[in-house]
Amino acid sequence: MDPVTAQQPTPLRRRTATTEEFNLIPAHVFPRTTRRAENGEVAIGGVSLPELAATHGTPSFVMDEADFRSRCREMAEAFGGGERVHYASKAFISTAVCRWVAEEGLSLDVASLGELRIALHADFPAERITVHGNNKNEEFLRAAVEAGVELIVIDSLQEIAELSRVARDLGTTQDVLVRVTPGVHVDTHEFIATSHEDQKFGFSLASGKAKQAAEECLAADGLVLRGLHCHVGSQVFDADGFVLAAERLLGLWKQLLSHEATGADFNVLDLGGGYGIAYTPDQEALDVASVARNLLAKVAEAAEEAGVPTPIVNVEPGRAIAGPAMVTIYRVGTVKDVETSDHTVRRYVSVDGGMSDNIRPALYQAEYDVRVVNREVSGTLVPTRIVGSHCESGDILINDVPVPDDVAPGDLLAIAATGAYCYSMSSRYNMFLRPPVITVADGQDRVMIRRERLEDILALEG
Amino acid sequence: MDPVTAQQPTPLRRRTATTEEFNLIPAHVFPRTTRRAENGEVAIGGVSLPELAATHGTPSFVMDEADFRSRCREMAEAFGGGERVHYASKAFISTAVCRWVAEEGLSLDVASLGELRIALHADFPAERITVHGNNKNEEFLRAAVEAGVELIVIDSLQEIAELSRVARDLGTTQDVLVRVTPGVHVDTHEFIATSHEDQKFGFSLASGKAKQAAEECLAADGLVLRGLHCHVGSQVFDADGFVLAAERLLGLWKQLLSHEATGADFNVLDLGGGYGIAYTPDQEALDVASVARNLLAKVAEAAEEAGVPTPIVNVEPGRAIAGPAMVTIYRVGTVKDVETSDHTVRRYVSVDGGMSDNIRPALYQAEYDVRVVNREVSGTLVPTRIVGSHCESGDILINDVPVPDDVAPGDLLAIAATGAYCYSMSSRYNMFLRPPVITVADGQDRVMIRRERLEDILALEG
Repeated sequence: MDPVTAQQPTPLRRRTATTEEFNLIPAHVFPRTTRRAENGEVAIGGVSLPELAATHGTPSFVMDEADFRSRCREMAEAFGGGERVHYASKAFISTAVCRWVAEEGLSLDVASLGELRIALHADFPAERITVHGNNKNEEFLRAAVEAGVELIVIDSLQEIAELSRVARDLGTTQDVLVRVTPGVHVDTHEFIATSHEDQKFGFSLASGKAKQAAEECLAADGLVLRGLHCHVGSQVFDADGFVLAAERLLGLWKQLLSHEATGADFNVLDLGGGYGIAYTPDQEALDVASVARNLLAKVAEAAEEAGVPTPIVNVEPGRAIAGPAMVTIYRVGTVKDVETSDHTVRRYVSVDGGMSDNIRPALYQAEYDVRVVNREVSGTLVPTRIVGSHCESGDILINDVPVPDDVAPGDLLAIAATGAYCYSMSSRYNMFLRPPVITVADGQDRVMIRRERLEDILALEG
Repeated sequence: MDPVTAQQPTPLRRRTATTEEFNLIPAHVFPRTTRRAENGEVAIGGVSLPELAATHGTPSFVMDEADFRSRCREMAEAFGGGERVHYASKAFISTAVCRWVAEEGLSLDVASLGELRIALHADFPAERITVHGNNKNEEFLRAAVEAGVELIVIDSLQEIAELSRVARDLGTTQDVLVRVTPGVHVDTHEFIATSHEDQKFGFSLASGKAKQAAEECLAADGLVLRGLHCHVGSQVFDADGFVLAAERLLGLWKQLLSHEATGADFNVLDLGGGYGIAYTPDQEALDVASVARNLLAKVAEAAEEAGVPTPIVNVEPGRAIAGPAMVTIYRVGTVKDVETSDHTVRRYVSVDGGMSDNIRPALYQAEYDVRVVNREVSGTLVPTRIVGSHCESGDILINDVPVPDDVAPGDLLAIAATGAYCYSMSSRYNMFLRPPVITVADGQDRVMIRRERLEDILALEG
């Protein structure tokens, strides 16, 4: 059976159809250790969420350590070794998470001096760090080279000269990849292929700029060209887009292999991140093993056709590791029924967070799933909008979701799959204090990141 | 001459047409004290921006104190007294700004416990504070009543009962407004009028919910109904939408006036905020005096027609005070030319900030103006995209702006009108440290909010 076909999901319902279904936790959306107990309370990592809320308050992010680590291991196994799987720390980074990634044997991507410094603070092995960024300044480049990072992904011609100077200054050499824009954009199951890419990252393949950059790297003192990098999109669930990008890159790859300055360690084809997750029950979960198997097989085929040795394939999942491992718990406040212009009624359920802790619905029209986690509910499903407490009418967490009508002030809601790009993009809008991140594992809860205090804000005032 | 017609601008050019024009600072977009010196350097508040950048680093927010205060005074004069003008602190709040607002005699709006606590920390007079929020919890309500705030804007039936309980508990009474959704939405010069509003705030006029809420307030122990509130939109430049909303509210107003429980101090018609600013040279500046004159005259007419005494009109400008007073200065890093699919070339200019310090372009497709502030430039205008340093292709500050082609790494750019909803919505995405806010006035610069340090982030880790 074709491995891509094998992973296609059975058709999923767009919406929860019954109250009974609403009380069932969708296993492919919530963290893997999520369970509803006999008393109706939901636990993650063996920790009751109502108890966690009582201890730590709301809103809180809850991180399922076992889920996060299991996804690290699955990625490592699927792609043939943890060193090939680079956790994209921009999705969610903390000292603790860097340590988990290190312990699971994965590599790490950083895209700023701040991310690099957190990783080094966590004693993450520098020789497993890859550095990204369209605008790395000299301070960042110097810190990366001094730390001894494995790879720096070159994003501009300026950077080649600057990094060469930094490496020579420090009396060392630096391994690099060249970021190529191959004209492939993937979004879920769709991809478009063009010859040009109008974006800030990388060098276009079609224009010859990518070749020029690679040759400048080969010629630059202090730089060792180890391979090529590309990134095709986000929320990707199959291998096709990655494979097309790889096929395109292998043309340049072959030319570079024949270059006299190219060393034997020119062997890294980094195909970037973008592996998808299920945010809502109707979305499928990523079949990592199947996609990886398909991807690696196709790249090997393409390399054989191109007449070059099969490259080492690196990948850079962020969301696919951190995303499903976390939920955000909120307390219900105001519940209000609003008659809409078509004379139906929309229920507005306000929670004690909002766009400051999850900007993704407003920024990307992202969709999420919500469940009541302090009890089983029994009401009739009504069209509901879950909104935050910010002074802005666009402060919407879930635009339209059927929720039982007995949900009431004081109930505890969990919004799932908030591990990626929620805490990391959180703000203090309306002087909301950022929520804590609570790690749960084996029946224990511990504070990974504490709740902010007003004093943290006032400490910045001169 | 009709005052609304009088303020219509002469047609403005969509884009800078020449390099000479690019070197001219658009006075209606930049802070009022902005000047370019003979040596080409731009100063605000008498402080050279290149010198400020050398002292404080980049990116930095630069706040023109004289600009901010002058807009407070203009608003107070236009609307007949500072107590009627409530600065909407969600736009930008700090202890210093609360003090300026207090010194200029304005009132203050807060929309969260955090904003209230900052205001009280700044010794802002509680009797000039109005409290907003669709989901005020008991802690927030109690803090507001205890502090002795002037008005709390009621946003749900639940809140009436809760606030009544809190006021009685504290042995006091609390003045309130009822937030009404009148079915008027304004955006710049357009408005739409419907009978329904599908949003989280307030009580709809058409459904009778607003009347019900007002009557419940009149009946509730501990609450004194002082008037009605509405909010019609944002980036509003004329009075029409406000007037239509006021006319609609006056119907309910008249009914409430005849209610036996209504006191003599039922006299506040709060028409909310939404006053616009010019973000780009082609946009007009708000003519505050003209809009206010027109608005107050029309409300008085409408009251006369309705046969009721003219209410006191409160307004709630945030953006219109803070927005134009600030710029963000950035250092140019990577400059890259990218061939687009129509075979033209787009120049990408990267700066050392991005969507973490200004989410508005990504979130609202907001447009901004940029100028080089360390020198006069002389190159040819080329189509340019100003991008940030985040690891995300959507990290764009200005999508398409003509910029002279001699702009080079190391140049200093200022993006104007970043005073509202930029710092207040800023994040630590990619572990970027939030920039400082530097106050400039009378040739002096001082740190209002210092730059974040990695230690601030690590301090949150358990």
